[in-house]
Amino acid sequence: MIHTLSVLIENRPGALARVSNMFARRGYNIESLAVGPTERPTVSRITLRVDCSVHSLEQIVKQMHKLVNVLRVNELEAETAVERELALIKVSAPPDKRAELLALAEVFNARVADLGPDAIVFEVVGVKELVRTGRIGLGRSSLRKAPPKQHALR
Amino acid sequence: MIHTLSVLIENRPGALARVSNMFARRGYNIESLAVGPTERPTVSRITLRVDCSVHSLEQIVKQMHKLVNVLRVNELEAETAVERELALIKVSAPPDKRAELLALAEVFNARVADLGPDAIVFEVVGVKELVRTGRIGLGRSSLRKAPPKQHALR
Repeated sequence: MIHTLSVLIENRPGALARVSNMFARRGYNIESLAVGPTERPTVSRITLRVDCSVHSLEQIVKQMHKLVNVLRVNELEAETAVERELALIKVSAPPDKRAELLALAEVFNARVADLGPDAIVFEVVGVKELVRTGRIGLGRSSLRKAPPKQHALR
Repeated sequence: MIHTLSVLIENRPGALARVSNMFARRGYNIESLAVGPTERPTVSRITLRVDCSVHSLEQIVKQMHKLVNVLRVNELEAETAVERELALIKVSAPPDKRAELLALAEVFNARVADLGPDAIVFEVVGVKELVRTGRIGLGRSSLRKAPPKQHALR
């Protein structure tokens, strides 16, 4: 199961290395991680996603609390947290496919970040729902006439 | 000067640790870093910002190329790259300040991600211009009657 952790660290060289070393030593692969400044110049926030059991997560949180420069560790849970993800997606777009791609982008609320002669870069902000429905699905009707790399937009 | 590097790495435990260790060993502080999946399941992309001289950057790039799991390193330059940053900003918002804050948010193109009884979480996507104007500035006229934590919206 994928868990999201929000970690406040002192903004010092080596702080991120200590955190990522701890995951590497224990063999956990970080699915995604973002670290950046907070409203306090001396403090950074790491948001990371890791695929592990609840038991492993408890161990990880315990280990993190022991690390130098780590100030606070919280698990973000779908019910109580706001989560966002920003993606930039470059799609190959020869002239005859461009209209189709732009129409698709509109459906998925993607904005055009850059438009080149052969490619378009889309910007998508993904909202991870506050309350989840559980996984639902439908066969893709687009499979018969998929434009190139259209999968990148889903 | 702040430089942005885009690094493709193999999606293996320890790959991020090797990269962040290299920065820590050399004493460079990473301003921000994001790592996440790409369109290829075995490859992740790290985008990081580091404040260093052009000479140091050359050394960093050289060292990174030597690391296990690092596939490609590119500097993203303002003239040729599309850069975005997503921020979630929680602002304390007592009822009598809410209208003012929401009006301000509109000016800065911030969207409301969560609205609580005492706080609002805003979502802002920052566009780092493709061509820079150089730094320009004006005195803040808002300093006289700033709402609480309004600075977080700029």
